[in-house]
Amino acid sequence: MTIHSPFVLWFTGLSASGKTTISQAVCKYLLSHDIRRIEVFDGDVIRTNLSKGLGFSKEDRDTNILRVGWVAQRLFNHDVSSIISVISPYANIRNQVRTSIGKGFIEVYVSTSLEECEKRDPKGLYQQARAGLIKGFTGIDDPYESPINPELNIDTSKLSVEACTDKIFTYLSQNNYIK
Amino acid sequence: MTIHSPFVLWFTGLSASGKTTISQAVCKYLLSHDIRRIEVFDGDVIRTNLSKGLGFSKEDRDTNILRVGWVAQRLFNHDVSSIISVISPYANIRNQVRTSIGKGFIEVYVSTSLEECEKRDPKGLYQQARAGLIKGFTGIDDPYESPINPELNIDTSKLSVEACTDKIFTYLSQNNYIK
Repeated sequence: MTIHSPFVLWFTGLSASGKTTISQAVCKYLLSHDIRRIEVFDGDVIRTNLSKGLGFSKEDRDTNILRVGWVAQRLFNHDVSSIISVISPYANIRNQVRTSIGKGFIEVYVSTSLEECEKRDPKGLYQQARAGLIKGFTGIDDPYESPINPELNIDTSKLSVEACTDKIFTYLSQNNYIK
Repeated sequence: MTIHSPFVLWFTGLSASGKTTISQAVCKYLLSHDIRRIEVFDGDVIRTNLSKGLGFSKEDRDTNILRVGWVAQRLFNHDVSSIISVISPYANIRNQVRTSIGKGFIEVYVSTSLEECEKRDPKGLYQQARAGLIKGFTGIDDPYESPINPELNIDTSKLSVEACTDKIFTYLSQNNYIK
């Protein structure tokens, strides 16, 4: 397997929707096929290395997303693909990143429902948000603007991890990103 | 000319020491020789795309430098070289970046004296700092820790732009970064 054309796989969706799980499975699969020209950016990587000093206001969230998009673009310009998992709740900013990348930007909407995400709540964040201990939490008291025409739509409550990654690789293959 | 081994050319020095001028000349020369696997990070690029939200405290300056270094490392891992101009006044943080890159990190100390930089003062910043209108200005009321063993030392008050870039390309060539 080789990357024929670089891409930015942009996983967007609510907290606990399964973005990181799926993106890690995709990454693992690529590495197991000896594909190394990739970088993975998930919430932890971004918080540690790129967003220190930013909060959760709309402005700070936008700055964060544009920053991640900018780094992905730098890599993309040199044929390095990125796999990115960020809630990225605002459609307008996601579309700015889309425009900056152009062909190669693949929006993967992880559309797992709020009810399901809240049921999972692995870090207890929804519970804290419901109790008012966390303010501006996406899906509770801050909006999530669903993608209108995402390249892919994945609901991790209906598909297994394998089925989700299959769907992604089918897309990548059919659109000549990988061969 | 080709890049044989990727590098991170890290220009450190006082404000107005000539870091950006020299780095732009280096970049222009590389591009004119059809070398495209490079990225250039100067103050403006960094402020716009990476450091919004950071100030000039020691902690914020350190975060900024580590962040630029982290992006350079991501690129470096994929054989993309970077040309970076930042005051980066603290030796300890520069050395952290050096360690993260390993072989390939080239510290270029732009050692133009404070007197000369203050005489140039193209943006009137030194004047404002002397008047107390800007606080924590490197060289005036914030320290600049000179590199002890930089790979290159360049004083732009003694060498022309051409002589500076020659010195850099001689180093790159003699150390097998370019051929």
